[in-house]
Amino acid sequence: MRRVGHGANIRAMAPKTLRTTHRSALLFCGLLALPSAAAAQSAEPRDALYISAPFVGLADGVFDGEVTFAELKRHGDLGLGAITGSDGELVLLDGRCHQVKGDGSVVALPDSQTTPYAIAAFFGPEWELELTEAVDLPALLLLLDSKLGAPGLPYAFRIEGTFPQVRTRSVAGQKPPYRRLIEVIKDQVTFDLENVSGTIVGFRVPGYLEGVNVPGYHMHFLTADRKAGGHLLAFRASRLRVAADSLTSVHVQLPRSPRFSTKDFPRLDRTEMDQILGRVPLPPQPRSQR
Amino acid sequence: MRRVGHGANIRAMAPKTLRTTHRSALLFCGLLALPSAAAAQSAEPRDALYISAPFVGLADGVFDGEVTFAELKRHGDLGLGAITGSDGELVLLDGRCHQVKGDGSVVALPDSQTTPYAIAAFFGPEWELELTEAVDLPALLLLLDSKLGAPGLPYAFRIEGTFPQVRTRSVAGQKPPYRRLIEVIKDQVTFDLENVSGTIVGFRVPGYLEGVNVPGYHMHFLTADRKAGGHLLAFRASRLRVAADSLTSVHVQLPRSPRFSTKDFPRLDRTEMDQILGRVPLPPQPRSQR
Repeated sequence: MRRVGHGANIRAMAPKTLRTTHRSALLFCGLLALPSAAAAQSAEPRDALYISAPFVGLADGVFDGEVTFAELKRHGDLGLGAITGSDGELVLLDGRCHQVKGDGSVVALPDSQTTPYAIAAFFGPEWELELTEAVDLPALLLLLDSKLGAPGLPYAFRIEGTFPQVRTRSVAGQKPPYRRLIEVIKDQVTFDLENVSGTIVGFRVPGYLEGVNVPGYHMHFLTADRKAGGHLLAFRASRLRVAADSLTSVHVQLPRSPRFSTKDFPRLDRTEMDQILGRVPLPPQPRSQR
Repeated sequence: MRRVGHGANIRAMAPKTLRTTHRSALLFCGLLALPSAAAAQSAEPRDALYISAPFVGLADGVFDGEVTFAELKRHGDLGLGAITGSDGELVLLDGRCHQVKGDGSVVALPDSQTTPYAIAAFFGPEWELELTEAVDLPALLLLLDSKLGAPGLPYAFRIEGTFPQVRTRSVAGQKPPYRRLIEVIKDQVTFDLENVSGTIVGFRVPGYLEGVNVPGYHMHFLTADRKAGGHLLAFRASRLRVAADSLTSVHVQLPRSPRFSTKDFPRLDRTEMDQILGRVPLPPQPRSQR
C-alpha cells in the first residue's frame, strides 16, 4: 500500500481495454433472486434501497449521525457511506460494517457507532457476468450502462475481482464545527493498492433521487483480507465477477436533529458532487497567505 | 358551484388579512400524537411519507399507475395525488379515496383502481391552531412557514374550514399516448365554490425530495358533503382549524413498468412545476393555425 498524497487525479485506461472486453470476454448468467436469511429477519423489504439520511445533509457538513450501524444492518447487508465525524469510509459487506480510516487501516465498526449518511440493501443478485480480460473503472461503467436496462431504477452491485492496481481514498475524522464536505474532501488521502483481490460495493442511482442521494455510480472497495479499501477512485482489474440487483423501492430516514431539520438545504451542486465522488479533479487548493 | 373556464389565475387577498390574523386570532394547542388504529394495521410506520411513484414520471406523462388505492390506504389515511389516465384529482381523507373528476363531480375510488402518483401518511397531528378571522391561501402559507420550525422535514396537514370562496381545478381523463403533465394541465377546468365547509389535505415537502416529489406546498380540497373539490388553487376562509404532523421518513415505491424504468428522466423544471401546481399562471395557449 503506497500513500500518494492529496487530491490525485484519476488516470483512465486506454479505450482499447473496453473494446477487448466487449469482444471476447463476457459470460452472462441469469440468476433467480432468492430471499436470504438476513432479509427474512430484516426491517426492510427485499429490493429496497435504504438511505440513512439525505445526502444534502452530509454535503452541507451535517456529520453527526443518528442511525447506528446496528440499525443500518437491519436495512441491508451490502452498503457504503460515511461515519460520524466524517471519520473515514464505510464498507458494509456480508452484513459487517468496516471503517477504512484516514490512515488507511481498516477496523470493524461497533454496532453503537453512528452514520451521518449510508445506503444499503439486502443484496440478491438478478444477474452476474464474468470479465476475464483487463478492464478499468471507466470501462466497467460503460459496460454496466450497456447491461442495465433500466436507468429509471436504482441498482446495487457486488463486484469481486483481482486487481493489479486499485486507487482508493479516505478522510481523517473531523471536529465540530464541521466544514462542508467538499472542503473536507480537499484533505482526502489516497491509497494505491497493488496486486490485491477484493470486493467493490456499489450503487447506481437515478437522477430523480438527487438530494436524498448522489445520482450516478458510487463505489467503495475492500480487499479480501479486509486490511485496506476506501472510496473507489480508479482501478485496473485482470478479472471481475459482477453481480447486480435492481431495487424497486426507496426508504429514506430523516434526521430529527435541529442541525438537519431546521435547515433549508440548497440543491446539490453537480460539479461539487463530481469532485466529492472523484469523478473529476478537485479544485486547486488556495495558497495560504503569509 | 360555478365553472369559470380554463387556466384562470389565482387572485391573492390583500396582505391586511394576514396581519389581522396574526394579531388577534391564533389559538395554539400542543397535541400528543397518539397512534391510530389504522396505523397499527398498516404497512407503514407512523410519521412516514409514502410516495406511490416518483413525481418525475407523472410530470413526463407516465399516467399508468401500478399502485392500487387498496395498497395506497395501507400506507396512509390522508393523502392526495392523481388517478390512472390523469383522470381527475385524488383526495384521500379519513382512509377513503375520492376522485374529483374533470366535470367537477366526486365519486369513491374502487380499491382496484390505480394511481400513477400519490402521497399519503397516517395522520397524527402534533399541533393544531385555530384561525377565527379571514385568511386566504398566501396568508395561510406564510403562517405555516412561520409556525413550522423544521424546513428540513416534510409535513402533512389537515385543515378544516368554512370558506366563502374556494377555487379548485381538475382535469379530464387522458388517452394514450399521454402528453406531458404541463400540456394536460393547460386543459384544466377550474371550479369556484361558494360558501362551503370542507377539508384541505396538504403537504409541505423539502427541496431535497425534488424529483420523487414536488418541493413546497401541495394541497387538495374536499367539501364536507363530499360533492366537490379538487387541486386547491385559492380560497378565502372565515374560519380554519389547522392540524400539522411532521414526518421523519420517506418511502418511495418505484414503478417496474418499462415506461418508467427504462427512462432517464430530466430534472423537474421549476417554472413548469409552479405552473402545474397553480402557483404561477399557466403559459398562454398557442393559437391554432387556420
